[in-house]
Amino acid sequence: MVGDDLMGTHDKPILVFQTDFTYAEGAVSSMYGVVKSVDRELEIIGGTHYIPKFDTWSASYRLYQSLPFWPEGTIYVSVVDPGVGTDRRACVARTASGHFVVTPDNGSLTHLARYIGIEEVREIDERTNRLASTRGTSVFAGRDVFGYTAARLASGIISWEKVGPSYPIEEIVCHDFPEPCVHCGEASGIVEIVDPNFGNAWTNVPATSMGEIGVVLGDSLHVEIAHGNEAVFSKDVPFRTSFGAVGVGEPVAYVNEVMNVAFALCQGSFIERYGIGFGPDWRVSLGVAR
Amino acid sequence: MVGDDLMGTHDKPILVFQTDFTYAEGAVSSMYGVVKSVDRELEIIGGTHYIPKFDTWSASYRLYQSLPFWPEGTIYVSVVDPGVGTDRRACVARTASGHFVVTPDNGSLTHLARYIGIEEVREIDERTNRLASTRGTSVFAGRDVFGYTAARLASGIISWEKVGPSYPIEEIVCHDFPEPCVHCGEASGIVEIVDPNFGNAWTNVPATSMGEIGVVLGDSLHVEIAHGNEAVFSKDVPFRTSFGAVGVGEPVAYVNEVMNVAFALCQGSFIERYGIGFGPDWRVSLGVAR
Amino acid sequence: MVGDDLMGTHDKPILVFQTDFTYAEGAVSSMYGVVKSVDRELEIIGGTHYIPKFDTWSASYRLYQSLPFWPEGTIYVSVVDPGVGTDRRACVARTASGHFVVTPDNGSLTHLARYIGIEEVREIDERTNRLASTRGTSVFAGRDVFGYTAARLASGIISWEKVGPSYPIEEIVCHDFPEPCVHCGEASGIVEIVDPNFGNAWTNVPATSMGEIGVVLGDSLHVEIAHGNEAVFSKDVPFRTSFGAVGVGEPVAYVNEVMNVAFALCQGSFIERYGIGFGPDWRVSLGVAR
Repeated sequence: MVGDDLMGTHDKPILVFQTDFTYAEGAVSSMYGVVKSVDRELEIIGGTHYIPKFDTWSASYRLYQSLPFWPEGTIYVSVVDPGVGTDRRACVARTASGHFVVTPDNGSLTHLARYIGIEEVREIDERTNRLASTRGTSVFAGRDVFGYTAARLASGIISWEKVGPSYPIEEIVCHDFPEPCVHCGEASGIVEIVDPNFGNAWTNVPATSMGEIGVVLGDSLHVEIAHGNEAVFSKDVPFRTSFGAVGVGEPVAYVNEVMNVAFALCQGSFIERYGIGFGPDWRVSLGVAR
Repeated sequence: MVGDDLMGTHDKPILVFQTDFTYAEGAVSSMYGVVKSVDRELEIIGGTHYIPKFDTWSASYRLYQSLPFWPEGTIYVSVVDPGVGTDRRACVARTASGHFVVTPDNGSLTHLARYIGIEEVREIDERTNRLASTRGTSVFAGRDVFGYTAARLASGIISWEKVGPSYPIEEIVCHDFPEPCVHCGEASGIVEIVDPNFGNAWTNVPATSMGEIGVVLGDSLHVEIAHGNEAVFSKDVPFRTSFGAVGVGEPVAYVNEVMNVAFALCQGSFIERYGIGFGPDWRVSLGVAR
Repeated sequence: MVGDDLMGTHDKPILVFQTDFTYAEGAVSSMYGVVKSVDRELEIIGGTHYIPKFDTWSASYRLYQSLPFWPEGTIYVSVVDPGVGTDRRACVARTASGHFVVTPDNGSLTHLARYIGIEEVREIDERTNRLASTRGTSVFAGRDVFGYTAARLASGIISWEKVGPSYPIEEIVCHDFPEPCVHCGEASGIVEIVDPNFGNAWTNVPATSMGEIGVVLGDSLHVEIAHGNEAVFSKDVPFRTSFGAVGVGEPVAYVNEVMNVAFALCQGSFIERYGIGFGPDWRVSLGVAR
């Protein structure tokens, strides 16, 4: 799809951006300006600019959460780049779902690689794919490399091959984390992410494993959450279709928007109330209520 | 206008979104992705994603404040949905101004119903108007029902009638609040909303009633604000065209952008300085300065 | 480019907005709605709505930082307007780079005037260039004057001349601040702005002056920062290409995205750690490490 110069305006892929820049200064605007200077016709969507600073795990999860809902061919630019200016690779990945991700190769592809699949990855050749007018600075790859390259790829100015040399998919930098599993009537996994706005905690335990442990909607679940060796939460929690099925301020387990088990407080913050974080060392186990 | 398949790209209605999602996670992006997957040509504008959480009164006021400035036919998607997954209705309302609002019917239509008028309302039939791939979850109607239905309506894939059955306008869920009035030389109403950024308090008292109580720009107003039975503010305040007409840090009454009387501190926050909130039980009365 | 009615859709200039409105209320949406009601085809980009409230210096710096990356002809609407409703001029400036800026003339053009150059400036004639339906209010020029005029100019409804009368460029309101200079082996200037997100401090000292004082990448710099007469920071700091070249939490001097010398803490906040502000009275001097 990319690079076909017979396409009309709306056949050029959409560019969706996610970064940790916030809107506190002028970075988003100058990055978008570069895109429009490459090709006036390109469509830019701001996915979010509020990924937690330097947090490549969250960047990775948000790609997984949102990218599959975009049309095939969409180019997602993800810039959370604690190693900007060092020798981490700048890359473009092509997913099994037919999307492209332009990003530093620093862990941001972890969840896509595991759940969706990466079919090919190319290292951006900065000798040819870098905004020439700003060569004196090395700290804003979002503008000078990632946005610029994404725009030229979307516009058809460069082909997929001209991004740079492909490298083995096995070399993609990924965070390590355990697979969820069901064992002896217990489903276990991790708190994979939280929703800092509504205060929900999302596990990586698929809703389908509830059947395997003999729990159906309407039952209660016994939930244990531990951070490393420290037990943080241990409680029976009703398993319901939505937050409104329990009283305001009460905990509830439910099937979240990516079809995993998650926890909330009705109109409150589960993560603040119980001090819940996320990542590979936040283990969760789920069983029949005691 | 909706559903006419002879229209060019730019005749398809704009979709404007307002939610309480913030950009702290991936929800906005996946919701927008669904829209673009329905129809690549649709134009998406982010009105705001910072409506206070679960606050259907504020959602309602922001619709009233901004929707009338959009072209006729614009489809506004408003998702502040404390009852997501319960049996509150999902609906599309057609206003007397020729706009459409896709929203849970939970109070979010209060101000449009009173000030602009709703001409017809349809309950979204989720058997036909729901993203099929996500049927296992009930917690993200913004993506799976509201955004999806708005996109299909804007695109002409479904006609207005195919949204679902219409129901009596009288059944629309509305917050109750008193009409402003003028009586014995006093204008009374409520603090209908505040501006949390600039710190202004907006009443529902029309600027035109100032003439009825004998106050003109340049005069002073006697202002009383009470929360329930508690007096919170009682002061003479200059009535001027803008904030800059008084000294920095001084209170001023002025005609706000929707032509009602409002209060500000010049380059400060009126609502923080005086502890002012908003809603039906925040009563205000205005008279000639004493 | 503006006003040529033979152009296709995508030849109409882009409108980029920056304001201090935030998204806490409905202002951004109603301002954008006015633009789309003037001309459905116009493209709107939100640069940022998080300029610090009333801070015309920051508004000015952000224009300088981002505007040059946009295509020639782009119309930037900058609304940070502490004097709204008073007799400060509303204007449109045409820069030497071929961009347009629609803004209150209140200091917001300071950096563009000095670094890029203003070729012509016109006072908006509000008798003809003001949204007629809202004449009863004077507090939302972003919607009623700036957004409205920018849209009509971009659309070709009014020509450049019809904005209003031009006035002498020398009358543009500018903040006063010292030029950077090199003297006796020391480069001096000011902390011109900070990045409140990543916590970096940006000087107005060009990277090229490092060579003049005999410092190259890999050396260390002696950095002194003073606020008025008070010394705030005095330290030898490594001068490197990027943040990642020093240990986490350590200070570093680097060449920032606009090719000036700047300071950061690796994955921390330089400005919080050392209490650094910005503006004409934040003086910096740079020399060879002691």
